[in-house]
Amino acid sequence: MEIKFKSIGVVHSPFKKREDINPQKYAHPQGFDSVRGELEIHKEYEEGLKDIDGFSHLIVIFDFHESKGYNLHTKPLLEDTLRGVFSTRSPSRPNPVGMTVVKLIEQKGNILRVAGIDMIEGTPILDIKPYTSRDQKSTIRLGWLEKRMKKSFTAKKNQKEDKNG
Amino acid sequence: MEIKFKSIGVVHSPFKKREDINPQKYAHPQGFDSVRGELEIHKEYEEGLKDIDGFSHLIVIFDFHESKGYNLHTKPLLEDTLRGVFSTRSPSRPNPVGMTVVKLIEQKGNILRVAGIDMIEGTPILDIKPYTSRDQKSTIRLGWLEKRMKKSFTAKKNQKEDKNG
Repeated sequence: MEIKFKSIGVVHSPFKKREDINPQKYAHPQGFDSVRGELEIHKEYEEGLKDIDGFSHLIVIFDFHESKGYNLHTKPLLEDTLRGVFSTRSPSRPNPVGMTVVKLIEQKGNILRVAGIDMIEGTPILDIKPYTSRDQKSTIRLGWLEKRMKKSFTAKKNQKEDKNG
Repeated sequence: MEIKFKSIGVVHSPFKKREDINPQKYAHPQGFDSVRGELEIHKEYEEGLKDIDGFSHLIVIFDFHESKGYNLHTKPLLEDTLRGVFSTRSPSRPNPVGMTVVKLIEQKGNILRVAGIDMIEGTPILDIKPYTSRDQKSTIRLGWLEKRMKKSFTAKKNQKEDKNG
């Protein structure tokens, strides 16, 4: 069964290509928080943005349009161990669909200025949803990622930064 | 431009059809937390689930397969006011793609037993991702939803329940 979607807009990002994203610099949980960009929604969908400026955070569903093929086992950036693709956020996955939570700074018509961009310029947007209480999970376990975070940060620092997230 | 995805699995849910979901009962943020179900990943993708049992919460991206058409302005369940579709979680949207965070209870091969199911039986799964610190936003504004939550709950109760989420 084939499921067909269309682009409802496009991401404008300071990252012009994948190689512009330095994994070392952006690996920690707040790495992208200061990266600003725009979500340009196609004019025909602009009316659907009504009331969105009341929300502080948005869920962006997008197409990893430069992703070519995938393996079920994949090596995450900065890692040596192969992981199951569904336990990673790799762009190379059976359906190359991405999800990022961004902070809404300002709406101007069909343009949403946001922070927290980790997509590259020209990424097709499939959907925008409000981030709600149901998406907040405070006590979480992070599997193989837990180790990475302990390597780079103290638990205390993470906790403090999460509060500002 | 057409973007094509395929089903990587299927949701098994106690909700056999949309009408089984009583909006009054499930409106509050923790409404679905106790609803259990299974994510059955097609056997050919099972290897991609390696390492997933280390994560407490998963992001499920799925197809609202029973959604037919959409309006850019929509009346959310239990509401009287039309809202922009992108500031709602309505299944009737330009791309009928859904996103729900579930709690992983147990993995048995290609079957993930989870809690937090708000999808109906037979929903096609497009992707599974680990829920990470980057998806946790602790200080959020909820726009038109804020009012609804104030109607049903005290802020204190919400806060307490969020901690268990």
